Amino acid sequence: MQENSPLLSKNSELLRDPAAIASKLATYHVADVVDALNALAPAVAASALESMPVDKATDVLEQPGFDKPQELIERLPLGRAATIVGAMSADRRADIFRRLSEPERARLSARLEPSIQSSVQELLAYPPMSAGSIMTTEFVSMPAVWTVEQALQHIRDVGGAKETVYSVYVLDPISYKLLRAISLRQLILSDHATLVIDVGPPRRPITVSPLTDREEVARLISKYDLLAVPVIDEKGRVLGIVTVDDVIDAIVQESTEDVQKFGGMEALNQPYMKIGLITMIKKRAGWLCALFLSEMLTASAMQGFQNELEKALVLTLFIPLIMSSGGNSGSQATSLVIRALALREVQLRDWWRIAVRELPAGLMLGSLLGIIGIARIGLWQVTGLYDYGSHWSLVAATVGAALIGVVTFGSLTGSMLPFVLQRIGFDPASASAPFVATLVDVTGLVIYFSVAYVILKGTLL
Amino acid sequence: MQENSPLLSKNSELLRDPAAIASKLATYHVADVVDALNALAPAVAASALESMPVDKATDVLEQPGFDKPQELIERLPLGRAATIVGAMSADRRADIFRRLSEPERARLSARLEPSIQSSVQELLAYPPMSAGSIMTTEFVSMPAVWTVEQALQHIRDVGGAKETVYSVYVLDPISYKLLRAISLRQLILSDHATLVIDVGPPRRPITVSPLTDREEVARLISKYDLLAVPVIDEKGRVLGIVTVDDVIDAIVQESTEDVQKFGGMEALNQPYMKIGLITMIKKRAGWLCALFLSEMLTASAMQGFQNELEKALVLTLFIPLIMSSGGNSGSQATSLVIRALALREVQLRDWWRIAVRELPAGLMLGSLLGIIGIARIGLWQVTGLYDYGSHWSLVAATVGAALIGVVTFGSLTGSMLPFVLQRIGFDPASASAPFVATLVDVTGLVIYFSVAYVILKGTLL
Repeated sequence: MQENSPLLSKNSELLRDPAAIASKLATYHVADVVDALNALAPAVAASALESMPVDKATDVLEQPGFDKPQELIERLPLGRAATIVGAMSADRRADIFRRLSEPERARLSARLEPSIQSSVQELLAYPPMSAGSIMTTEFVSMPAVWTVEQALQHIRDVGGAKETVYSVYVLDPISYKLLRAISLRQLILSDHATLVIDVGPPRRPITVSPLTDREEVARLISKYDLLAVPVIDEKGRVLGIVTVDDVIDAIVQESTEDVQKFGGMEALNQPYMKIGLITMIKKRAGWLCALFLSEMLTASAMQGFQNELEKALVLTLFIPLIMSSGGNSGSQATSLVIRALALREVQLRDWWRIAVRELPAGLMLGSLLGIIGIARIGLWQVTGLYDYGSHWSLVAATVGAALIGVVTFGSLTGSMLPFVLQRIGFDPASASAPFVATLVDVTGLVIYFSVAYVILKGTLL
Repeated sequence: MQENSPLLSKNSELLRDPAAIASKLATYHVADVVDALNALAPAVAASALESMPVDKATDVLEQPGFDKPQELIERLPLGRAATIVGAMSADRRADIFRRLSEPERARLSARLEPSIQSSVQELLAYPPMSAGSIMTTEFVSMPAVWTVEQALQHIRDVGGAKETVYSVYVLDPISYKLLRAISLRQLILSDHATLVIDVGPPRRPITVSPLTDREEVARLISKYDLLAVPVIDEKGRVLGIVTVDDVIDAIVQESTEDVQKFGGMEALNQPYMKIGLITMIKKRAGWLCALFLSEMLTASAMQGFQNELEKALVLTLFIPLIMSSGGNSGSQATSLVIRALALREVQLRDWWRIAVRELPAGLMLGSLLGIIGIARIGLWQVTGLYDYGSHWSLVAATVGAALIGVVTFGSLTGSMLPFVLQRIGFDPASASAPFVATLVDVTGLVIYFSVAYVILKGTLL
């Protein structure tokens, strides 16, 4: 947005003339056109699109960066919209259909060729976030009996209409089963008379099912340095391919979702500045209320310890300090485990390996904070900054011991929560920092007052 | 790891025979070989590498998935190590040199060809995380006066040695300045007699400088759907290219770092299960102690309000509830702004746009929690679950008003902290959930007791 929108917004006269905008945009890179259109009012953007040649408008709507491509399609004349949507790549077309309202979808679909209609239906049937839902059905395939020369000629003939020509799929000529995935690079480096089945090493291609999660697809493409991964049906026939650029978009989107979830809210799924205030508040209110209701247990816990509080008010001074330390160590452990699970560094069954690392880590970190806490109380007492009473050394011991307990408990809880969530079928990334902090807060209070009871029994309590 | 290590670990006899391991691994995909080698002891893995043919060992060490490739190189005989490193791609070779210890680096460098030595020196000179440090110097370029036929023949001749042949760089024949970036697809779809300068649209290529941050490179590659982006010097000559697979690795690594930082710690930069316990504790202890020391201010604040606490012990019951609500709303706002900044949806100068959104959002969310809080106190009081004293309605009002103040303050602080950090030259992703919670905790206490003073003055206080 930042690159071009100032240019458009400065020319306010230009803004009233869609044809002028269109001709101005003709000099832009197609991804920058998207930014410029995003910055315009939808009606103006749609008019500008209408003033462009059909192939340029198609190129533009192919881009993944649009905030609301369906709004533009809806504002175009139906015939023009159908021409553009009909010329788009299958995955992008399905994406736009997915966002259209039902009546608009039916109206537009009726204007498309039957083969395109059924391709849209097929892609829409796959669950969102699955390989099937982000794949394109336009890929280059050929029977295993072709020569490299035939293959290259075929790519020259059909290459313009395919999403990528860099990955080529070699099929069994009878069953259409996928036999090899070869690269255009291997093809052009091979002798023209070679059979395509003999190009590249004789290895079973990396494939996914249409139901594979897009995160797993991203992991495979990244791990095997692929430009595309074929999506195959149960008979081994290629349904479509997921390309590396779709996967980058998916990875970036997943990171955003993960960070937002970790911050303790639902993922926005829209840019922060574009989402409506009320929608954003709704996405935040759910978790915030849930956490608030759980955190109310701290009030109940405090009520339960009212006698202790009345006798030893000095204990209240350290409640925030001790509770936050548990939450912080838990948040660290959670962030580590969420990423380790996402990157498949650990599996569900490895939970105990994490636990046996987090136990000593929590004990050591807790001891460190405990020593600092004891030193702080001692320093204030000895220098006369504050008087913690005659039993100040016992109070210091209580705080130190409670910190060890709370930090260890926080590390263990924080590291185990993502496993528990994954085990019961939730996204482990929902284990947010506030979630962990809330879990640890109530227990932290109980640990603190229990330690106090043991250490201060007979003196303060 | 999960795919193959069980297979290796079950054959314990195999483990004692590196040649047997090597022949077993020969059937694996090269990325799976990496996983298998990672799972072996470094000495065994190095022996297995030594038993492989040099070109296979080179392919394997080319992979980015190694935990510690430098350890394997150090354990190989020097001559074999030099052969393999000499045959590697320039970016990967530089990466290994960056990890080697100084004496090892000098010993190995001395065995390389002078041209390779200077290429390594050049790449090592760029700062880490920059485009220069992840680029490769092996790319396909050609003078603008060549025909498509010459271009394709050139690619066939040199293509085997280049990291990618899918992006081709067209240079001014005199000045060697970059004129066009064209794709292999455009080349093979063009007429053989066309000049390469006339292939594709006449548009200035997207480029980066060697000092561009790799996150920005990733953003450009993702936005413009590129397979590679050229890195150019100040005279417009191509120094190298960054390819899409390097960028995926960078994006995944950055996400991990961001989540770990957001969890309130230094980024591990190593898989969780591979990092030593002490190293991990060090990465966590720094922030944990810093947060602990800051959180000590809560104890000082509580000491300052000791009179109020003694008079109205009932106020202590809600301290954890109110403080955590501020932290939670702050954590939400921080996660939103961190991602919006990372995705360039907002710039530093947009801070006030965020502030004017977070202010009403905070007020509304705070009011929601305030109402729930008042209802909770009223319900307990009326049903006799707990007695908050004769002024219970004033206590409820205090809690409700404090929640509005604390949640609004939390949202504003959480959303502004990443901007402040970026402004003073830090990574905005360092604005972690615990960091925000700590900032909000102390102020939250002050807000709570100030509200209490106003509402309860003359009754409880």
